[in-house]
Amino acid sequence: MSRKQSLSGFHEWLPAERIVEQHVLDTLRRTFELHGFAGIETRAVETLGQLLRKGEVDKEVYAVSRLAEDQEVAEGVREPKDPSDPKRLALHFDLTVPFARYVTENAGHLAFPFRRHQIQKVWRGERPQEGRAREFTQADIDVVGDGTLSPRYDADVALVMAEALGALPIGDVLIRVNNRKLAEGFHRGIGLEDTTGVLRNIDKLEKVGVEEVARLLQEEVGATEEQARQALALAEIRTPDTAFVEQVRALGVEHPLLEEGLTELADVVDTLHRRAPGRAVADLSIARGLDYYTGTVYETVLVGHEQLGSICSGGRYDALAAKGNRTFPGVGLSIGVTRLVMRMLSQEMAAASRSVPTAVYVALTHDDDWARGQDVAAALRGRGIAAEVAVSAEKFGRQIKHADRRGIPYVWFLGADGAPDEVKDIRSGEQVEADAETWAPPAEDLAPQVTRTGE
Amino acid sequence: MSRKQSLSGFHEWLPAERIVEQHVLDTLRRTFELHGFAGIETRAVETLGQLLRKGEVDKEVYAVSRLAEDQEVAEGVREPKDPSDPKRLALHFDLTVPFARYVTENAGHLAFPFRRHQIQKVWRGERPQEGRAREFTQADIDVVGDGTLSPRYDADVALVMAEALGALPIGDVLIRVNNRKLAEGFHRGIGLEDTTGVLRNIDKLEKVGVEEVARLLQEEVGATEEQARQALALAEIRTPDTAFVEQVRALGVEHPLLEEGLTELADVVDTLHRRAPGRAVADLSIARGLDYYTGTVYETVLVGHEQLGSICSGGRYDALAAKGNRTFPGVGLSIGVTRLVMRMLSQEMAAASRSVPTAVYVALTHDDDWARGQDVAAALRGRGIAAEVAVSAEKFGRQIKHADRRGIPYVWFLGADGAPDEVKDIRSGEQVEADAETWAPPAEDLAPQVTRTGE
Repeated sequence: MSRKQSLSGFHEWLPAERIVEQHVLDTLRRTFELHGFAGIETRAVETLGQLLRKGEVDKEVYAVSRLAEDQEVAEGVREPKDPSDPKRLALHFDLTVPFARYVTENAGHLAFPFRRHQIQKVWRGERPQEGRAREFTQADIDVVGDGTLSPRYDADVALVMAEALGALPIGDVLIRVNNRKLAEGFHRGIGLEDTTGVLRNIDKLEKVGVEEVARLLQEEVGATEEQARQALALAEIRTPDTAFVEQVRALGVEHPLLEEGLTELADVVDTLHRRAPGRAVADLSIARGLDYYTGTVYETVLVGHEQLGSICSGGRYDALAAKGNRTFPGVGLSIGVTRLVMRMLSQEMAAASRSVPTAVYVALTHDDDWARGQDVAAALRGRGIAAEVAVSAEKFGRQIKHADRRGIPYVWFLGADGAPDEVKDIRSGEQVEADAETWAPPAEDLAPQVTRTGE
Repeated sequence: MSRKQSLSGFHEWLPAERIVEQHVLDTLRRTFELHGFAGIETRAVETLGQLLRKGEVDKEVYAVSRLAEDQEVAEGVREPKDPSDPKRLALHFDLTVPFARYVTENAGHLAFPFRRHQIQKVWRGERPQEGRAREFTQADIDVVGDGTLSPRYDADVALVMAEALGALPIGDVLIRVNNRKLAEGFHRGIGLEDTTGVLRNIDKLEKVGVEEVARLLQEEVGATEEQARQALALAEIRTPDTAFVEQVRALGVEHPLLEEGLTELADVVDTLHRRAPGRAVADLSIARGLDYYTGTVYETVLVGHEQLGSICSGGRYDALAAKGNRTFPGVGLSIGVTRLVMRMLSQEMAAASRSVPTAVYVALTHDDDWARGQDVAAALRGRGIAAEVAVSAEKFGRQIKHADRRGIPYVWFLGADGAPDEVKDIRSGEQVEADAETWAPPAEDLAPQVTRTGE
């Protein structure tokens, strides 16, 4: 992790680090699939028209162009294109916009409610800073309905993420849940109509503090001191169960949207509290800034690493996608895998037991033993034991040293003149007779293990 | 596969198709890891300086730029950049160039010979045509040495690929092997010094035929009729074992490089013939066009689908990478996964048994059974059985229909008033009593199976 990356914002892992990342990805995929989420991928590029469809976008976009065309423009042989041409290609900056397009394009081939997971890289041309990358992997789940989508899925997707994150070697996570209708209804109820403006400033609470947000609400959204006080009073409410309902009511604000939001959030929080106690809270400060959610919203912190920000966020859209007069409501969450893995590695929260998949290194006594060595390796591989074969009969000491330097735990010695083979655990030095058709390492040595290393 | 893609050259799979692709990727990764190849990923972008380092590049490159900067240039607020600025970013067009950079950058952290696999998307801005994509997945293996690398790895990597491809539901493959030294030595031996020019034309043999290549060799490379005849005589040689050596000698050409190449290729082909009989041939027409190999070269055809072109190609580089006066020789192969999967799907060579991971759909008798349904699903998932729960107590007929439409094989019914639960195989209609702590579906129903469907 202390290595300098040759392109700022683009992280590359060493083999042992990649094993940790791969473990995270495999664990997430496994959990998503156990819950019935089908994996899809979308292309890396979208048209600018698609990417900017929702109007204001706060993500920096990387545009893509054929180098040959750029050169022709520079030579004056080709007319320059409008850089904002909606048909221009750009790299996707999240997986939600591409998924929405995928759903509308393939609606006739999908069975709804469609449960999909999607684990892919995304790109943002932002100025790199601590914890931010320009290329990073996201792991998303969403459930999408055709026309309607039961509110039960709002709790369902949060439970899946709680289970998926809980299966990682990272310690406790806490999902903070809010509801846009609740917040917007409350703000309307106290006379603040620019609810987006209010949410954008509430979103800054953790960064700039209560007093500054109170000032911003008055300056930027035109709130009175009392309105700002009430908006902040709402944002302070945080309960592990449905107790938040009474606390909101105690603020004395009334609005039909607020009622709707209270009911929806109470249902979600009640379910989470029963099925994943301690893993989720109602937190009425959660705003999700510029994202276009219409109901439940989620953020997730890694307990003890709150300053890392949200590692898993999402929410519900009344219309994730639309096609003619057909709408597809959706609810889902997205894990920022790269940010999480960067933290796991930089804080040494988890580590791989070795940096190679190989469990057994077959040594050679004579150069022409290679074919016999391959037979042994093939027998081991046939039983799921990763093995590789030396290419020359160096001194055993050198061959053992080679295996050790690569982190391979076992060295296999071919028996001479009908003597049985032997296998040596090069950590303990223990050496035993072994048959390639039956010998197996202990389960923890079979493949690299990724475990919590404590903090 | 008959769906129109919304961006030409960028393929997206439906869930059932993605299961086939995922099966291919998982199978390859599994085989690579059993052979001790560590997985790495490199960033999607390289600098143009890196990408064009080898001089002439026949791949169309996609350049990448921050949209905000492009707009500033269009508005005249920012100076336009030279489109060929070596610091400019572009998407990688293969995994070899990025891997070479990775090796030089991280040489101090790697143990050599370094065995790595890399499965990632690459992009080429070429005009899309049958079988060509602008975005596609490659699966590469390479072994890289520090200074030297045993010729045994040339056979090793080919055997790994033969095993990996053999584990896919695609039928037989045939690896065609040649050696650049053999070809170049032969061409020099008959007086043709522009060996790159000769190879570039020999590479067109399958496309344009013997007569046209003979003409091209004379016109473009300045060969005499006799030199063209001899070059083509060499390219006609094809033997499953080392018999090619005698056939080359019979052509009466002598050159030290030819001898070196003959010995190297004979060693590789002999090993492949012994360890994977019928899977490989010496084929002296294999040229690998503009790629900068220096020894063994490989192409692989899918038997019965030869017109698809090579699905797995590669070779040996004396200096895959260099750092100061330290060189890193390498040998490896790359599978064009997207092209292969496109063929598997378009020709219905393989199919997934269902399009969702879910094995069991838990039906609800009453709306408030949801929590009980989740308990059942959790018990099943705990034993590796993918399950999801209905969100409302529609009529059983509708719930069964819903599971059926999504391809879920089993529906679970919660027992009422202490009666045992029951599970129904909705394909056979068979319904039995079941306990979520012990019941399991047959192995073939546990997860979607990808199998050959015959042709």
